[in-house]
Amino acid sequence: MVNETQQTCSASSSSRSDGGSSSGSESSKDNSRCSTPVLDADRHERLREKMRRRQEAGDKWFSLEFFPPRTANAAVNLISRFDRMGAGGPLFIDVTWHPAGDPGSDKETSSMIIANTAVNYCGLETILHMTCCNQTKDDITGHLQKAKRLGLKNIMALRGDPAGEEWEEEVDGFNHAVDLVKHIRNEFDDYFDICVAGYPKGHPEAESYEADLRHLKEKVFAGADFIITQLFFRPETFLKFMKDCQAIGITCPIIPGIFPIQGYHSLRQLVKLSKLEVPQEIKDVIEPIKDNDAAIRNYGVELAVSMCRELLASGMVHGLHFYTLNREVATTEVLKRLGLWKEDPRRPLPWAVSAHPKRRVEDVRPIFWASRPKSYIYRTQEWDDFPNGRWGNSSSPAFGELKDYYLFYLKSKSPREELLKMWGEELTSEESVFEVFTCYITGEPNKNGYKVSCMPWNDDPLATETNLLKDELEKVNRRGILTINSQPNINGKPSTDPIVGWGPSGGYVFQKAYLEFFTSSEIVTALLKVLKKYELRVNYHIVNVKGQNITNAPDLQPNAVTWGIFPGREIIQPTVVDPVSFLSWKDEAFALWIEQWAKLYEEESPSRMIIQYIHDNYYLVNLVDNDFPLENCLWQVVEDTFELLNSATQQ
Amino acid sequence: MVNETQQTCSASSSSRSDGGSSSGSESSKDNSRCSTPVLDADRHERLREKMRRRQEAGDKWFSLEFFPPRTANAAVNLISRFDRMGAGGPLFIDVTWHPAGDPGSDKETSSMIIANTAVNYCGLETILHMTCCNQTKDDITGHLQKAKRLGLKNIMALRGDPAGEEWEEEVDGFNHAVDLVKHIRNEFDDYFDICVAGYPKGHPEAESYEADLRHLKEKVFAGADFIITQLFFRPETFLKFMKDCQAIGITCPIIPGIFPIQGYHSLRQLVKLSKLEVPQEIKDVIEPIKDNDAAIRNYGVELAVSMCRELLASGMVHGLHFYTLNREVATTEVLKRLGLWKEDPRRPLPWAVSAHPKRRVEDVRPIFWASRPKSYIYRTQEWDDFPNGRWGNSSSPAFGELKDYYLFYLKSKSPREELLKMWGEELTSEESVFEVFTCYITGEPNKNGYKVSCMPWNDDPLATETNLLKDELEKVNRRGILTINSQPNINGKPSTDPIVGWGPSGGYVFQKAYLEFFTSSEIVTALLKVLKKYELRVNYHIVNVKGQNITNAPDLQPNAVTWGIFPGREIIQPTVVDPVSFLSWKDEAFALWIEQWAKLYEEESPSRMIIQYIHDNYYLVNLVDNDFPLENCLWQVVEDTFELLNSATQQ
Repeated sequence: MVNETQQTCSASSSSRSDGGSSSGSESSKDNSRCSTPVLDADRHERLREKMRRRQEAGDKWFSLEFFPPRTANAAVNLISRFDRMGAGGPLFIDVTWHPAGDPGSDKETSSMIIANTAVNYCGLETILHMTCCNQTKDDITGHLQKAKRLGLKNIMALRGDPAGEEWEEEVDGFNHAVDLVKHIRNEFDDYFDICVAGYPKGHPEAESYEADLRHLKEKVFAGADFIITQLFFRPETFLKFMKDCQAIGITCPIIPGIFPIQGYHSLRQLVKLSKLEVPQEIKDVIEPIKDNDAAIRNYGVELAVSMCRELLASGMVHGLHFYTLNREVATTEVLKRLGLWKEDPRRPLPWAVSAHPKRRVEDVRPIFWASRPKSYIYRTQEWDDFPNGRWGNSSSPAFGELKDYYLFYLKSKSPREELLKMWGEELTSEESVFEVFTCYITGEPNKNGYKVSCMPWNDDPLATETNLLKDELEKVNRRGILTINSQPNINGKPSTDPIVGWGPSGGYVFQKAYLEFFTSSEIVTALLKVLKKYELRVNYHIVNVKGQNITNAPDLQPNAVTWGIFPGREIIQPTVVDPVSFLSWKDEAFALWIEQWAKLYEEESPSRMIIQYIHDNYYLVNLVDNDFPLENCLWQVVEDTFELLNSATQQ
Repeated sequence: MVNETQQTCSASSSSRSDGGSSSGSESSKDNSRCSTPVLDADRHERLREKMRRRQEAGDKWFSLEFFPPRTANAAVNLISRFDRMGAGGPLFIDVTWHPAGDPGSDKETSSMIIANTAVNYCGLETILHMTCCNQTKDDITGHLQKAKRLGLKNIMALRGDPAGEEWEEEVDGFNHAVDLVKHIRNEFDDYFDICVAGYPKGHPEAESYEADLRHLKEKVFAGADFIITQLFFRPETFLKFMKDCQAIGITCPIIPGIFPIQGYHSLRQLVKLSKLEVPQEIKDVIEPIKDNDAAIRNYGVELAVSMCRELLASGMVHGLHFYTLNREVATTEVLKRLGLWKEDPRRPLPWAVSAHPKRRVEDVRPIFWASRPKSYIYRTQEWDDFPNGRWGNSSSPAFGELKDYYLFYLKSKSPREELLKMWGEELTSEESVFEVFTCYITGEPNKNGYKVSCMPWNDDPLATETNLLKDELEKVNRRGILTINSQPNINGKPSTDPIVGWGPSGGYVFQKAYLEFFTSSEIVTALLKVLKKYELRVNYHIVNVKGQNITNAPDLQPNAVTWGIFPGREIIQPTVVDPVSFLSWKDEAFALWIEQWAKLYEEESPSRMIIQYIHDNYYLVNLVDNDFPLENCLWQVVEDTFELLNSATQQ
């Protein structure tokens, strides 16, 4: 083992793992000095390097293909699926190009925007398909420029289906995928990794299998980095194809496209489109059970598993590409049975990283957006540099305009009716709002029998670690401390801890206790008195919607509230309480009362006026207990505050 | 208390403590984002701001005046004195300008170089005196440019003593201190803080006391920031002077110059130079005891203490300036009795910071130079930026040439004869070298009865925390693990811990265990076998003089080995094990064998050949135990290595 990791280098030419700035610069401090500790090589390598590294290490991998959805609602669902299936650890996903669906546009459902979301918001390495026939060079260049701007780094170069029945080559136009490959290399040099399609049975329009192999070789020699194949039904089909490719000098990775049969109709449709023939032995099984979806899916899973096993056993296959048809169950099951699905997804950082190349050094964020990570990514998308190692004093981090965050996938996933059932058809008092917060924390149904599964300040269900604080949170929410973000203190748990762990193994993670809530000005007045007792221990920021701001943060410095110590690395501190960013977050947090909650009700209705009152009069408070090795004192702070209030009432 | 630290700011204009970039910059990330957590405001403020802040906070302070030494040896001693007296917490020191001593030159004893050393190597805020008469504008500008380049930020602007007996004003020349003040402000704008001299009895050459006050006002209005006075013997002299200054509109700080009488002759000489008269009541005491130095010094201390008490009690005096005459005892005693001497010097960082303005953000250093901090400062003096928050991946940190470190104050403080007594008049084997290392660790005399109080790799006596490891270190040095640097692991001790603490109070400090040593290739071979067992826990770097380098550091990343968590701040990690810098350190560490030890002996002598053999054949090893919460495993690693060697010998 030691031999694998030992590095021997001479004093005069120390080697580095990344390609940048290795020359003997005279500068006293090269740009890389402030670079991030490389927590995760995946964030720094391009796709073809990742493939090579996996292959060299003998790690098998998989990838997932999706097509763009038809409706905005379907897009919201697809993005949730990206998050769920992303957790299984695909090496990449790819998004197909639908010429009929305005694929390069800014529509929520376009191929471009779906791929953009996968990269930037879901943190997935993503290949965007692109077809070239019936398009001008300028159109194509425009699409590629846009893809680059959005942070996409990989293109699947395809010809596409001709528009008419009879297709004629255009002079000077794009007639074949190879033209697109050449164009990308001409115009964008080595920026993109390029994938091309291979046809294990030969392309249906090719003169012959051999002629098609020669076309494939042309595409590779024009600059393609790897090949994904069309689906096939028998492992020997792929293995023969792979040998034939190698025989004519194709040496790049060739990834078999796996299609788990999921239903009779989808199979028929796909076969029709791809002009493939289903082998008789499969037809023999399927025809008798064609109306039994479950049976067909089970069979499809069995078939895919056995085929994949055979491919992997051949030693020639290192990765498997799945045609998911935007469905989760069958593919996930195949992957789990193959042992390729990551059962224990190790988080590189406490929050979901973005895969945009310009964000690859990002390793610090303010804690405020912990439950709205997509909003944070959106509001910082124009930044040129990302905090790396530390947040630093920043007097004016330019967060995107508030209106920006009403992007479709930042909107609530639930329709108005459902929200009303959760948050109250009718509110009668501030206390009825307290009740909603309390039900969200406890997971118990509200008085109308509905569970409160989301809140305006949370994209996702309650984090597992919040459960550690559940009892205390319930108690304080009932009394009008309306919590929207919290974390327990952690004094050195292993980085592999299933609840609070993150980062490479062998490390230790730490947290300072954090509590963020809305509350009334009466409570704030008492709280401020109580906080004097905790002056050296607790940092606080208290702000109302008008921006009146009370804090004891020294020099408006950020406070690191999550950090990790790892073998052989510098310290990582991925979340901070930043006093300046808090003022940007406060605008968003207060606006959510109105935009997502008050507006569910008629104007002038009592319900709406209650929310409006809270928005106008409550304070947003955050508290940090700096003494992380001791028992969290924030509950005591709240307790003291209520005691003070009670004694004042009694006098 | 809470009221003092509370800050109220509106959302739209968040205030900052430092002056930089407060305007609403559109840039996504202003320069300050990567700025250091302000551990210590002293590092960021200019002298006049420090004075104002101390005065506003009601903190009394002191400062110390020194003159440049005559010989290089005296300079080495003076610098040690800077380190010791700096520990008492002066607000600044100042260094006088000796026109006869080539004060602006690069000589080891020049005013310029002594002030440079105080700022850069001792981390002291420093005022450099400068006189202007009999000098050209170009000379003066040259001196000022050089001072600025060296990191000096404060000038005491003086006329100086005319060269001849009869002095005539030069046309267009510098005739008065005010000319120098104007020149500095003209040529260097607001860069320097300027101090001028005040004469409580009037300048001896002035027409009158009133005329001298008007000259002083001229100097202040020309741009001086504060005044230090000539010495005086009665507190009422100063208090009257101060009131007279205020009466004519001088509002800047006026700092009384305190001269603790230390001896009969020095008093007489000073009085002669300054043309002051010693009051009769003092003469009456001194004359009878003029041959009893101790009695005079005691009297001087008493007198100074009582005068200082009266000055401070007046409420008009916030700081006291001491004419030390380069002596320690009297001034230190006065300061201790006044309660101004910092008894518990809190270290802002584990290493001594430098006061050069370009280093004020520096808060990370490689651990290797821990015992040779001046060498580190010297070898990095050409850097334009200093690591701030993190070291980062640096492929080629450009350390200064090896020859550079033979600066006079980096040389051993002991003469050759003394070194020979400590390190052996004659070495007979490698084991006799082991013995020297062992004696240094234990503090016990060597076989010739001499204590080994320093080693080539240590500027200073053994660090207190090394005592925590003494027994283990002794054991391994005896067996040929020649340790030159080590630290114990620390799992969260209070930042106020007297031994390992540093940084602001209320924090926690941590360390990974570290061990660095020279050892033979036989031991290295066994060690490498043993390290396989500790692969995931221990990081190592093993290198010989030729640069053959064996390491398991991932991607040559730095490993943070000291860090601190503080209330309301980002994490500070002031020392790292950086694989790349280690190769620069190794050149220095190996060279010290030859330059400081081998060269004590005759060429071709057996002693010299033994050291040369070690230099040529030993390896320099560093080990980090990443598992800081557990018991330090490095001793077990060494133990296992010796066991393996023993078992191999027995077979």
